[in-house]
Amino acid sequence: MTSQQIDPATAWQARYGEVATRPLPPVPAVLAALLAHRSVRAYTDQPVDDEALELAIAAAQSASSSSNLQPWSVIAVRDPARRARLAELAGGQRHVAEAPLFLAWVADWSRLRRLGAAQGVATDGIDYLESYTVGVVDTALAAQNAVVAFEAQGLGIVYIGGMRNQPEAAAAELGLPQDSFVVFGMCVGHPDQARPAEIKPRLAQAAVLHREHYDAAGEAVAVGHYDPLMRRFQQDQQRDDRPWSQTSLQRVGSAEALMGRHRLREALNALGFALR
Amino acid sequence: MTSQQIDPATAWQARYGEVATRPLPPVPAVLAALLAHRSVRAYTDQPVDDEALELAIAAAQSASSSSNLQPWSVIAVRDPARRARLAELAGGQRHVAEAPLFLAWVADWSRLRRLGAAQGVATDGIDYLESYTVGVVDTALAAQNAVVAFEAQGLGIVYIGGMRNQPEAAAAELGLPQDSFVVFGMCVGHPDQARPAEIKPRLAQAAVLHREHYDAAGEAVAVGHYDPLMRRFQQDQQRDDRPWSQTSLQRVGSAEALMGRHRLREALNALGFALR
Repeated sequence: MTSQQIDPATAWQARYGEVATRPLPPVPAVLAALLAHRSVRAYTDQPVDDEALELAIAAAQSASSSSNLQPWSVIAVRDPARRARLAELAGGQRHVAEAPLFLAWVADWSRLRRLGAAQGVATDGIDYLESYTVGVVDTALAAQNAVVAFEAQGLGIVYIGGMRNQPEAAAAELGLPQDSFVVFGMCVGHPDQARPAEIKPRLAQAAVLHREHYDAAGEAVAVGHYDPLMRRFQQDQQRDDRPWSQTSLQRVGSAEALMGRHRLREALNALGFALR
Repeated sequence: MTSQQIDPATAWQARYGEVATRPLPPVPAVLAALLAHRSVRAYTDQPVDDEALELAIAAAQSASSSSNLQPWSVIAVRDPARRARLAELAGGQRHVAEAPLFLAWVADWSRLRRLGAAQGVATDGIDYLESYTVGVVDTALAAQNAVVAFEAQGLGIVYIGGMRNQPEAAAAELGLPQDSFVVFGMCVGHPDQARPAEIKPRLAQAAVLHREHYDAAGEAVAVGHYDPLMRRFQQDQQRDDRPWSQTSLQRVGSAEALMGRHRLREALNALGFALR
């Protein structure tokens, strides 16, 4: 089933656990596809062709870039042995080894470092947390456009944050130069219809959309509604069905809960990011 | 002119300064819209209605979220006086004051801090650079989905990185709690057809898309092609027409060139981000 085959009203109800507060108008196909997004971890053996990849990268490059600096790169990995090694680095995520295409999305300041070195000019601005932030933002904007482009072509994706578990090892595996690092990975493939993914519910808009100024007043009600909604969803998926607030708080409870990523700052320093 | 009215082959040529390396197949409307993206800074007086906003936020919430933590918020600002003040904070960007709707996209860990405090559990994981990074990534993925959703509804947008020029002042203006900060802003409005925006060229795919491992071999040729391409584009726009490599290197040349953002780390510390 492709995203386009779920109508917006059904997607809205799956996302928020209730019908929309006002009748949904007929929406463009683009919007219907966005509302129906699901992370896909089960793929057929069919490869992702280069044409689909290059269209997705053109979409990625069409996203906004701060001052047009374009501080990102993407590594397309098809080699099964390399995907298997990356799967291990990501904490043993099978879908990284199984997806026909894996993309490593890289915040990449090395390009401007090389240009600066070639022209004999300083690039000290790269050493600041601001530039790290710009690199991460621009990489994410590009990646998300690629997601929309892949899904429009009938493909499915899942982001792999586990690429930050061992940043130096990921960089070494992909031959990254200094001043670049894998922000996240992405599996891409043709969804296996025999193992379909469902639309995951989210917090009510009242919890995330504020008017004129920040207002947490609607938050307790929203979380009170969301916890049982997510429990039911997880039960349907036969997964850990503790309330969202409990699993989320555990995830941010301690350095240990970050699965190695508590040392991201040290890893980034080693990869050339001074983070001043 | 809406994005849909530029055909993909024309958009590809505008983006890369050359025709596609292979004939473009008929692509879905979604993809055609992505390829035709332009940042819009000139708007009509027509307001952006709440329905369009709420659909865009539903699209934003449909983007992936790391461990489903959803660590972001968005503040919708319509009040002209507040927009005028935010325009000043962003370095005097007129379009922030002129756009009928301004969105402040917030990396927001305050929600889980409040939940943790209410339940009496530690949330020490929030204090790490990893959590800052997750907050920035998830905010950017959400925002980019909103962009696609707005453009699908005929609206135009431009990102405002200038919201990081004075992060504490932006947070105060919007009443942000500790553990949250405005990653970037976004102007939204109906494009003024009398002042149309053009598709901005980007580096060739050879410079950003790598196969199996990082490879800078195609980079010099790509930049050599891109510099004159961007000069012609800038001349057509009657803007600064120095080569891209020169303006970009100047932008990252020094702390001073970051327009106040060299102190982002200090500002984030003040806003509650320990960045361990």
